[in-house]
Amino acid sequence: MNMRLSQTAQDTLCANALRFLAIDAVEAAQSGHPGMPMGMAEIAVALWTRHLKHDPADPAWPDRDRFVLSNGHGSMLLYGLLHLSGYDLPLDELKRFRQLGSKTPGHPEYGHTPGVETTTGPLGQGLANAVGMALAEKRLAAEFNKPEHTLVNHHTWVFLGDGCLMEGVSHEAASFAGVQRLSKLIALWDDNRISIDGDVAGWFGDHTPARFRAYGWNVIEAVDGHDIDAIDRAIREARTHADNDAGPTLICCRTTIGRGSPSRAGTAGIHGAPLGPDEIAATREALGWDHPPFHVPQEVRTSFDALRIGASQRATWQQRLDAYRAAWPEEAAEFERRVSGKLPTGFKVLADAILRGVNNEGATLASRKASQQAIGRLARALPELIGGSADLTHSNLTDWPGCGAMRADASGRHINWGVREFGMAAALNGIALHGGLLPFGATFLVFSDYARNAIRMSALMRLRTIYVMTHDSIGLGEDGPTHQPIEHLPSLRQIPGLDVWRPCDAVETQAAWNSAVQRTDGPSLLALSRQNLPHQSRDTGQLGDIARGGYVLAEATHGPAAVVLIATGAEVALAMTARDRLQADGIPTRVVSMPCASAFDRQPAAWRDAVLPPGCARVAVEAAQPDGWWKYLAGAPRAAVIGIDRFGESAPADELNALFGFTAERVADTARRLL
Amino acid sequence: MNMRLSQTAQDTLCANALRFLAIDAVEAAQSGHPGMPMGMAEIAVALWTRHLKHDPADPAWPDRDRFVLSNGHGSMLLYGLLHLSGYDLPLDELKRFRQLGSKTPGHPEYGHTPGVETTTGPLGQGLANAVGMALAEKRLAAEFNKPEHTLVNHHTWVFLGDGCLMEGVSHEAASFAGVQRLSKLIALWDDNRISIDGDVAGWFGDHTPARFRAYGWNVIEAVDGHDIDAIDRAIREARTHADNDAGPTLICCRTTIGRGSPSRAGTAGIHGAPLGPDEIAATREALGWDHPPFHVPQEVRTSFDALRIGASQRATWQQRLDAYRAAWPEEAAEFERRVSGKLPTGFKVLADAILRGVNNEGATLASRKASQQAIGRLARALPELIGGSADLTHSNLTDWPGCGAMRADASGRHINWGVREFGMAAALNGIALHGGLLPFGATFLVFSDYARNAIRMSALMRLRTIYVMTHDSIGLGEDGPTHQPIEHLPSLRQIPGLDVWRPCDAVETQAAWNSAVQRTDGPSLLALSRQNLPHQSRDTGQLGDIARGGYVLAEATHGPAAVVLIATGAEVALAMTARDRLQADGIPTRVVSMPCASAFDRQPAAWRDAVLPPGCARVAVEAAQPDGWWKYLAGAPRAAVIGIDRFGESAPADELNALFGFTAERVADTARRLL
Repeated sequence: MNMRLSQTAQDTLCANALRFLAIDAVEAAQSGHPGMPMGMAEIAVALWTRHLKHDPADPAWPDRDRFVLSNGHGSMLLYGLLHLSGYDLPLDELKRFRQLGSKTPGHPEYGHTPGVETTTGPLGQGLANAVGMALAEKRLAAEFNKPEHTLVNHHTWVFLGDGCLMEGVSHEAASFAGVQRLSKLIALWDDNRISIDGDVAGWFGDHTPARFRAYGWNVIEAVDGHDIDAIDRAIREARTHADNDAGPTLICCRTTIGRGSPSRAGTAGIHGAPLGPDEIAATREALGWDHPPFHVPQEVRTSFDALRIGASQRATWQQRLDAYRAAWPEEAAEFERRVSGKLPTGFKVLADAILRGVNNEGATLASRKASQQAIGRLARALPELIGGSADLTHSNLTDWPGCGAMRADASGRHINWGVREFGMAAALNGIALHGGLLPFGATFLVFSDYARNAIRMSALMRLRTIYVMTHDSIGLGEDGPTHQPIEHLPSLRQIPGLDVWRPCDAVETQAAWNSAVQRTDGPSLLALSRQNLPHQSRDTGQLGDIARGGYVLAEATHGPAAVVLIATGAEVALAMTARDRLQADGIPTRVVSMPCASAFDRQPAAWRDAVLPPGCARVAVEAAQPDGWWKYLAGAPRAAVIGIDRFGESAPADELNALFGFTAERVADTARRLL
Repeated sequence: MNMRLSQTAQDTLCANALRFLAIDAVEAAQSGHPGMPMGMAEIAVALWTRHLKHDPADPAWPDRDRFVLSNGHGSMLLYGLLHLSGYDLPLDELKRFRQLGSKTPGHPEYGHTPGVETTTGPLGQGLANAVGMALAEKRLAAEFNKPEHTLVNHHTWVFLGDGCLMEGVSHEAASFAGVQRLSKLIALWDDNRISIDGDVAGWFGDHTPARFRAYGWNVIEAVDGHDIDAIDRAIREARTHADNDAGPTLICCRTTIGRGSPSRAGTAGIHGAPLGPDEIAATREALGWDHPPFHVPQEVRTSFDALRIGASQRATWQQRLDAYRAAWPEEAAEFERRVSGKLPTGFKVLADAILRGVNNEGATLASRKASQQAIGRLARALPELIGGSADLTHSNLTDWPGCGAMRADASGRHINWGVREFGMAAALNGIALHGGLLPFGATFLVFSDYARNAIRMSALMRLRTIYVMTHDSIGLGEDGPTHQPIEHLPSLRQIPGLDVWRPCDAVETQAAWNSAVQRTDGPSLLALSRQNLPHQSRDTGQLGDIARGGYVLAEATHGPAAVVLIATGAEVALAMTARDRLQADGIPTRVVSMPCASAFDRQPAAWRDAVLPPGCARVAVEAAQPDGWWKYLAGAPRAAVIGIDRFGESAPADELNALFGFTAERVADTARRLL
């Protein structure tokens, strides 16, 4: 028998195969979200079998389309698509959905499952990741494409739901995508009018098409999300818009959540719970699906299989790269370096030399200013470095000579993110995920709050995303408690995998930047001062020790240390002055600068014990919530922390430092009382 | 001479007086933001001299209009208005703008300056506060107004800028206000097309009127923001819309930032820096202002003075209240209680009785379920309790029997916030600020990140805002690391003034709720389990001790404690089992339950030392980032923390607990190794 199904019947079969993979996996796990995969199955078929450019045999191929499942709870839809397309995700993994160690966790995880481009689940951020990816594509295209040589040319596709659209970050991301005219960004909205609490009419009344038009998006309205040909036409139209650089596109797909389930389709009851045997039986009956659980008919596999066409698309691109290399050999080498994520040859030597230069200069600067200089130095060596500020460019000091402004023509490297901290951070993640660029973003440290979950996602995905957070304490002065971080330093330090740097001078600031750009397994956040910080002198050994996160900046003299003063940032200078007084009183006093506690934690115990000898008293000093420091005082016989356990005040910085007790005298007195 | 100025000349004089108060104060402070006050001066004159219903002699009058300066950096505009209107804010305070201890901090602070309705500065949140205020007004009107007795009837006015509109929270707030049809909310947009980085065209291309229409707002476009009569007409139109319950209104006022400054008006240069003597002189010249610094002409004072009309408006309302009291005495008494913020007479006795009842029941429940029951019990006694979930009602368990759904008719008490954690939290603050209601909001603990700065603002303003945060650890299971909080408990504990509760059973959950509703000086956050927690038995003394935040749940027997196990939430049961094993091995072991560390910190040292005796070993156990616990281990000779210092995994909860070492055996072994 070799009966060919009609295209329509074949499409329906494919959509139902996706539905039943989700139904069966959720049922096996007794946990998960079948409603979205069942509702978006036809949309997925249209995109994945007719448009998506990808090669399952090479999930890292640079010019592949990027696909983002912003409504990440519908993970089984993506796992089904990856499996059927030919990614290294066997059916057995789908059977182990949401089980320990499987490749199919509850929400898609980047770096864990081949073909998953970003970790999603926290709603709205997938869209913002996609904005970053589309921005990266556009920037790399502007940078590398040449007349008759198009090396970078792919789309970024996003699936999103009502939840993503309700989140504020969707506003920030979509507004930014509009003004940047990211035309190759195409989002498909699962307009099912159901969220977890039920029919959205009671809490979500937006006219979403009008909203997105207001952002400068091209909006294709009223597409039947269960009509594969209609979706296909809409996608074609969107691609034409993209070709004409007419702005990003939102395709509004009217769908029914859980479509196929006779008694739960169109209700919140199908969103996040297994169907159960009876409803599964009824759904099989309704959809005419008579296969056993996890069975995929061969026709379906044939339709989805992307290995052959993917290989051909990739080969075509490889030919393009070869031609490019012949015509533009240096640019080709640079492109390949860039997309590999490797820094230029010899970069470490250069970075060390830069650091020595800064040390030799010995300048007294605000660390935000030192950061700006560091950015300028690194940007010359690293054309992949792009970034900017959430509308605080001249406060955060993020621009540099010759950077140019990133506008809709993608010609510059400095990004005016607008007042969009969360959207910025999530887009930075998207840029880092895309590859080829090394992104940073800036705001005031206190507004790290706004971006906090995206900073967490940088750490969870181990991305090289860099955060420049200035105005790092009450030292910012008159703007007052709404702008003065108190709890931020210690609470950011608690995000696993995030390196939080609080440098004490220009030298540590350069060292922090050097570490951040060379780090390969996670994000870094630099907390920087508004006010000037005096240079601290160091020998060559100490200069190298900064990267260890905590080191002896000034050794006790006239005997072994009786007390160790531990400080960060602006408070290091205070500790140094206090040390002078204590030493003058005959108390041997060591000062430990601890610009990055997590880097210090990664050092061998021998290093940590050498820096903080178990036997002697310790005083930690930081103009922030103090509780986190007890971890570093636990080994000491007597210890104290000087910190701030209440909100700040509006006044000139000097008066605040006196008010909150950040004086050398208090540090010295505190140490004396311990002895 | 008794020449009367024309109305127009008088208005101009008033606007210029506001301008120069801002110019002079910023110049005196050498710090601050003159651009916004200079740009919004006419808008302020139109609203404050012709529409705002308020009585400077009684800033807490319940039926006053609420005014919110969402672009809070323009604080000097508000201080000028408050001073000139007759609030207790003398000119001397304006001269001490941004100085230590003045009533005029850099950003407006609630509870600090009479007439300041909310603390603003973190952009976008003022709008969301205003949404909460308007919701409170509408709900109280629905609850208390009677035919022919209108007790609650006021507007909520918001000034906002481009920065507020770029922030994601503006989307959440405006979308929610639209669907809730908060018609008495009227926002005036300072459309000056300048943000800190310069002309917004490069980063903010939204068609804002279309965007707000998409939310269901009434939008009045293209108003000349320097034409007081035009603004007045727009406000009248907005009030008519409000009277017709036709949705909230956005008035788009085209303005020039820093208007009046010959060389800096219309540029970012005027946004956040003093003008300096030369430009001030030029501005005086340009505006014909020949008064010395801080001088206010008498005609200006007369125009702004709101004491007489305010007293009359308040008297009219007082008559209304008297008539209401005559017709509806019980309701009037309840209204007065409610707006005073006092709980019902005898509430404490009732709350204690409820707690005893829960203790007697001794049920094993998930603490989220126990919280739902607690809400139900308290909601019966406290009609002011309103709240709900950010689209996780059946996961957070926030509804209760008979609550009703809050919809555009304001008839219910349970609020479906939609997927809008940040907007929810900032609106909760607005409800608490408005008075008459006791608001709560819920989401998953991990998504406290999204709302974090608004939670901080609850604490900074010392508001009785309650956060219900469920799925509090890896114990939530299969949803995986994006949904499993790790760093959240310790990092929320670092927000000064926030009480973070993590109850170990239904009894502690009720105690946490009792504390939260009775707290008068700040917010509370309840971190609750998805999974069942066994009941712990307590005597009457222990029952009362829960409110102390940390107490001995199980005393060591057969001798003084050799080790103290400190635990919270789900880990308390683990600690109890570990204690059984240790005791069986002859090791006297105490278990301390510490549901609220900040409440424990407020106890006298004698209590704290009695609970955690300095001499004996301690083990802290919590399924969260461990570093915060060292604060409570510092006094111990030997100590350990069992926590989680990496991200979670997707798997059934039991397997995760085993994987991450949350077993009684590990707790016991850790204790044994210390001895």
